[in-house]
Amino acid sequence: MPELTFYTHPMSRGRVVRWMLEELAIPYKTEIMSFGAEMKTPDYLAINPMGKVPAIKHGDTVVTEVAAICTYLADRFPDKGLAPPVDSPERGPYYRWLFFMAGPFEMATTATAYDWRIDDSNVQAVGCGRLQDVIGSLEQALSTGAHICGEQFTAADVLVSSYL
Amino acid sequence: MPELTFYTHPMSRGRVVRWMLEELAIPYKTEIMSFGAEMKTPDYLAINPMGKVPAIKHGDTVVTEVAAICTYLADRFPDKGLAPPVDSPERGPYYRWLFFMAGPFEMATTATAYDWRIDDSNVQAVGCGRLQDVIGSLEQALSTGAHICGEQFTAADVLVSSYL
Repeated sequence: MPELTFYTHPMSRGRVVRWMLEELAIPYKTEIMSFGAEMKTPDYLAINPMGKVPAIKHGDTVVTEVAAICTYLADRFPDKGLAPPVDSPERGPYYRWLFFMAGPFEMATTATAYDWRIDDSNVQAVGCGRLQDVIGSLEQALSTGAHICGEQFTAADVLVSSYL
Repeated sequence: MPELTFYTHPMSRGRVVRWMLEELAIPYKTEIMSFGAEMKTPDYLAINPMGKVPAIKHGDTVVTEVAAICTYLADRFPDKGLAPPVDSPERGPYYRWLFFMAGPFEMATTATAYDWRIDDSNVQAVGCGRLQDVIGSLEQALSTGAHICGEQFTAADVLVSSYL
């Protein structure tokens, strides 16, 4: 297997990737990056020009974005059963809720945390809607069973669980 | 093939899904939804509790979120060659830039449009960083070639192109 390096900080979204790596039970090397200067060095910006963690380097493949890393890893290690088969209908809700958490849910919770204005004048255009919209959507999805992406334990559960 | 219904409005992110459906050249039925009451009926909220478009129903599978719909369709129609093979390293950048556009890029551009405050006090915590960070990251990625997810024409290109 190509070498896998995990760039993270314990107080970051990297904890979701850590969980994924531990679920996979694959060997990896951890690089703890301090916030600030260490994430802005040319060496690290070549890996993630955003200067943020987490990121992984798997052989020559660099992946950033928590959900992208989890989805990539689930696909690269299919024998671990963390993603539905690629050509199955179950892949629909799998992607739906991964992108929902990475997009609207993240934006609505961030907007709430920083008092960013979402009101009648812009709610239609703002992709995330209001906080109660994203929470209501998630609650409706979760009301149908213990898992929202099928009965297998998936990367989407990891993401969802980390927010709840 | 199961019936595919596409819920959209011409002045919405649904245009990205329309492009994807046309690239796939598969039969589908379009339901144009008007903004406001029509998107908030119980029937439509059962499909997307966010009360937003686009959404698709493919047989019994409902998918929302533009990037999720494109990624799902690319996987369900692998003979169209719109996604890298599921177990290939190329799947890394493919997911990376799909989630980058759906997450940080969407949030940073929305924050800019509505004067949502991102400054030194919160830039580390806010997932998207500043507008110049997401544009700089995308420019760095695009500087390496005509495509950022390999030479095949992918759903990520559709998403990226729609923003540029």
